[in-house]
Amino acid sequence: MQPVRAAGEVVKAVEQRKRPEYIPNRIDDPDYVRIFDTTLRDGEQSPGATLTSKEKLEIAKKLSQLGVDIIEAGFPIASPDDFEAVRSIAMEVGNAVHDDGYVPVICGLSRTREKDLETAWEAVRHAKLPRVHTFIATSEIHMKYKLRMTPDEVIANAVNAVKHLRSMGCTDIEFSPEDAGRSDPIFLYEILAEVVKAGATTLNIPDTTGWTLPHEFQGLISKIKANTEGAGGVIISTHCQNDLGLSTANSLAGAMGGARQIECTINGIGERAGNASLEEVVMAIALRGKDQLGGLWTGVRPVHIAAASKMVCDYSGMMVQPHKAIVGANAFAHESGIHQDGMLKNRDTYEIMSPETIGLTRVDAAGIVLGKHSGRNALNTRLGQLGFELSDEQLNDVFRRFKSLADNKKNITDEDVLALVNDEVHQPTVVWVLEDLQVVCGSMGMPTATIRIRGPDGITRVASSVGSGPVDAAYKAIDSLVRVQAELVDYSVNSVTEGIEALANTRVVIRPAGRQADVGYVKSYKGGRTQRTFSGSGADEDIVVSSARAYVSALNKMIGFISAKSAASAATAAMLGAASSSDSSGDESREALAAAEA
Amino acid sequence: MQPVRAAGEVVKAVEQRKRPEYIPNRIDDPDYVRIFDTTLRDGEQSPGATLTSKEKLEIAKKLSQLGVDIIEAGFPIASPDDFEAVRSIAMEVGNAVHDDGYVPVICGLSRTREKDLETAWEAVRHAKLPRVHTFIATSEIHMKYKLRMTPDEVIANAVNAVKHLRSMGCTDIEFSPEDAGRSDPIFLYEILAEVVKAGATTLNIPDTTGWTLPHEFQGLISKIKANTEGAGGVIISTHCQNDLGLSTANSLAGAMGGARQIECTINGIGERAGNASLEEVVMAIALRGKDQLGGLWTGVRPVHIAAASKMVCDYSGMMVQPHKAIVGANAFAHESGIHQDGMLKNRDTYEIMSPETIGLTRVDAAGIVLGKHSGRNALNTRLGQLGFELSDEQLNDVFRRFKSLADNKKNITDEDVLALVNDEVHQPTVVWVLEDLQVVCGSMGMPTATIRIRGPDGITRVASSVGSGPVDAAYKAIDSLVRVQAELVDYSVNSVTEGIEALANTRVVIRPAGRQADVGYVKSYKGGRTQRTFSGSGADEDIVVSSARAYVSALNKMIGFISAKSAASAATAAMLGAASSSDSSGDESREALAAAEA
Repeated sequence: MQPVRAAGEVVKAVEQRKRPEYIPNRIDDPDYVRIFDTTLRDGEQSPGATLTSKEKLEIAKKLSQLGVDIIEAGFPIASPDDFEAVRSIAMEVGNAVHDDGYVPVICGLSRTREKDLETAWEAVRHAKLPRVHTFIATSEIHMKYKLRMTPDEVIANAVNAVKHLRSMGCTDIEFSPEDAGRSDPIFLYEILAEVVKAGATTLNIPDTTGWTLPHEFQGLISKIKANTEGAGGVIISTHCQNDLGLSTANSLAGAMGGARQIECTINGIGERAGNASLEEVVMAIALRGKDQLGGLWTGVRPVHIAAASKMVCDYSGMMVQPHKAIVGANAFAHESGIHQDGMLKNRDTYEIMSPETIGLTRVDAAGIVLGKHSGRNALNTRLGQLGFELSDEQLNDVFRRFKSLADNKKNITDEDVLALVNDEVHQPTVVWVLEDLQVVCGSMGMPTATIRIRGPDGITRVASSVGSGPVDAAYKAIDSLVRVQAELVDYSVNSVTEGIEALANTRVVIRPAGRQADVGYVKSYKGGRTQRTFSGSGADEDIVVSSARAYVSALNKMIGFISAKSAASAATAAMLGAASSSDSSGDESREALAAAEA
Repeated sequence: MQPVRAAGEVVKAVEQRKRPEYIPNRIDDPDYVRIFDTTLRDGEQSPGATLTSKEKLEIAKKLSQLGVDIIEAGFPIASPDDFEAVRSIAMEVGNAVHDDGYVPVICGLSRTREKDLETAWEAVRHAKLPRVHTFIATSEIHMKYKLRMTPDEVIANAVNAVKHLRSMGCTDIEFSPEDAGRSDPIFLYEILAEVVKAGATTLNIPDTTGWTLPHEFQGLISKIKANTEGAGGVIISTHCQNDLGLSTANSLAGAMGGARQIECTINGIGERAGNASLEEVVMAIALRGKDQLGGLWTGVRPVHIAAASKMVCDYSGMMVQPHKAIVGANAFAHESGIHQDGMLKNRDTYEIMSPETIGLTRVDAAGIVLGKHSGRNALNTRLGQLGFELSDEQLNDVFRRFKSLADNKKNITDEDVLALVNDEVHQPTVVWVLEDLQVVCGSMGMPTATIRIRGPDGITRVASSVGSGPVDAAYKAIDSLVRVQAELVDYSVNSVTEGIEALANTRVVIRPAGRQADVGYVKSYKGGRTQRTFSGSGADEDIVVSSARAYVSALNKMIGFISAKSAASAATAAMLGAASSSDSSGDESREALAAAEA
């Protein structure tokens, strides 16, 4: 039980150890655990976490740097936008082979319908290692009320799905019995044996409601492994929700029970209380795998964790709390403060890992400290070290804002640079551009904002409005020109580093309202309807300006979605060629998206 | 493994089941697990989470409503302020016996020095059920380098501490072997047996670095229980840090290993990645105790969880992420949205608990929906239902701001009301009062703020300043009049409910800087020094005004601390009577506070 300062050791160990060759249904090293990241599929289903295709692609690139074995890139049937995101990830990230031969598997989710399966396969098939993940519910209540199928029909459906995938040439097939935890175990062994016989290569066991305790989940995995015919020839996987705060422990327990794939998300995002956190699972295995988990290990490179966490946080708008394990602002809080010389000598005794392990660099240690006099090259170098490759135009844009920031702030940290890049570069397709903003406000009443904004027609307009506060006034002024009605769902600001408005980072979440109130509704498989939301973020030295930028960014996303939706059916048909009679109306696609919460 | 809709059942079960009579060293029901809340001690040590005495008292009252068995109220030797907070909690909350005879134990932390022990005892002894928790490190590295004691000296120290407490009349004594996880087990059995012989009634086993896995920690607890002479006659306790995200699972594993006290905090706050979350531990035991944990149960009333969580969040400034289990904004996200009729019929199948279980009421279901025309009575009634009793003056204050809010917002939710109360009522002693603020800002440059502020001398002054943004400008203007130099450590804004600036809730964390840069330093037992920080919050319809209010509130806290510190030695001496030669300089007290992270 000796905590080890893992910094060098863990990172070095991972870098030196070559992961086993990827074969869908087996791993030649019995101790290797595959990490299946579902940030882009399950994580994106968090209320308000909607990502643009561009953001998804950037996150997928980061996941590849991180070295996850499988990227679940989305649910292709859900919408043309989702389809396109998965396809571009498959083509780009799924073909960018690293020097050591590693390339992530790109996975798409699908129900058992033929049309779904074909769309999913079409989206992923250009990857070097494509996978389709299909699912159907196996609990009595689901089969009876949701599916209205007999158990035999459910088995037939699952088997046909696997066979259909095989017939199209897909040889890497994951199957999930939805609501496994509440399914009759005997039926579970039976259906799992049948899908294995039909050609499934991974069996994923979801704890859909986050209800199980670790020893209980370990038992379930062991039993499935022991009692399912053919289970020895495929990979068993865990998918643990976090409703009782046990998802990390349950995932590890699943591995102790014989699972060799763990599904998880960056920062643990996902519906309700989210999923197992990739960073917690990976670091627990890295630090304790050898002495407490019989030698288990993963291929993830922890040094990219901090950057991945920050990116997912910025793009999804799902912040992490200061006391979040591994990636929270306080996780290494004993690192902060000034007089730390004393601590250095017995750091080993209180740290179970150093911040450098996950890629956090302190300002002093950053090598290059950027400031007022740093040039474009210095900035570009640092961006490269942080894992960003920008086009000249993008670099110009970031550099301009960097100089403006440097006028107000002595030392520019990595956090600042990341905020600038995330804000500037990865915005959705720009429809409306905020040009200028001026505000008068205070406790004396009548806060007033004047904005100048350029529309999709290239014309610049000016409007002013009074509100309950400066941000409200600015939003009302924007609303008066951008004629899309939106309701604010969530709003938050965090100052990125030292001092307020050194760089204020604002995130907003909106949903269609008024005339657009019917847009973006999702028929949930739970029987209700919920509405799609859109997030935007903005960074500026002025909090009101950053708030306005965030709002315009969210509006642009929403406008993009609304126009995409109206063009949906036609586009889907065109993309897939002449598929069999389409059963996928817009609403139905959305239903599928909701149903994807395995 | 059948998830049960627990709403009624869990709450009813707890309400109907009478907790066993409190006897320090034994529980007459072998399945009862005591919940030891350390939000006010360990939680308050989170960077930036500093609480005022008034806030601590309010939280303690809420913990009593919640029904925790033990409240660790603070570390009395740390400062006169800490002493006073613990004493007032012991006197008030520690004597407020509930109708069913329950009253929480009030506990104070102490090192093994006589002066510490006497101060701790003096602080808690007026409670009906007082406890002192003392600790000393038992790992080789700590004994050798930190304590510079031989193992025998450490045992003697621990035994003397327990005996000294007994001699003063303290019969409820908790002992923690600090760094237990890395201590020689044989030595651990020995020292624990000795302190039991001397009269300790609870043995707490901390996983100080959050390093252990559940099965490992369960093994440690079992071994201690099996091998420590006399362990059968006392209570074994867990204290799990969350560095790998496993603290809830470890606490439950500890209980499976025989522990019958679990130490935890509301929202899981605490140093670094924090502690086990009370709400996760309690709900896991409530929902799964019967079928998976051999019948374990606690006396906590889950229906007060939401209010306690919100209060700790507001006072400590430690926010919880949207996907935090149980208390995150999304934890019941399938509850949101509009058309949910369909979901009602199969709610049982997807919910493992209903929001009502933890005391979350939806606006529609709240009984009273407050609005523009609600009177003082309606507000007061709702406040009472939410667990607040305000003085007439406080009610006037909140009502005035409630009316102003109602002018801008149609429906006032519980969240709004809580924010108003938390902001208005529980502010620190007011030194400076923000009277008015006016700001001009925008993307055109030169954001300028003018403030009017009343000082401790009762004189109102006006100043203006230019800044990098409106908040920065306001803060600079405030700085120019309040001559305390502070550095901003953290800043965040969340809009409380529907629509931006319906009510913007701002939190800031500051630390002394410039001339005051030497104030509040803590000599950490880790060998370094860190600085105490101060948080403030403000709620207003105008984001810049709420930011200014938050800043002034934090400044008031800091000023209070600075003046208290200079009066410290004298006050401590006066309060304790003629104690033996004081070894407690200001710095030393702070060192003690840091050392308290058991």
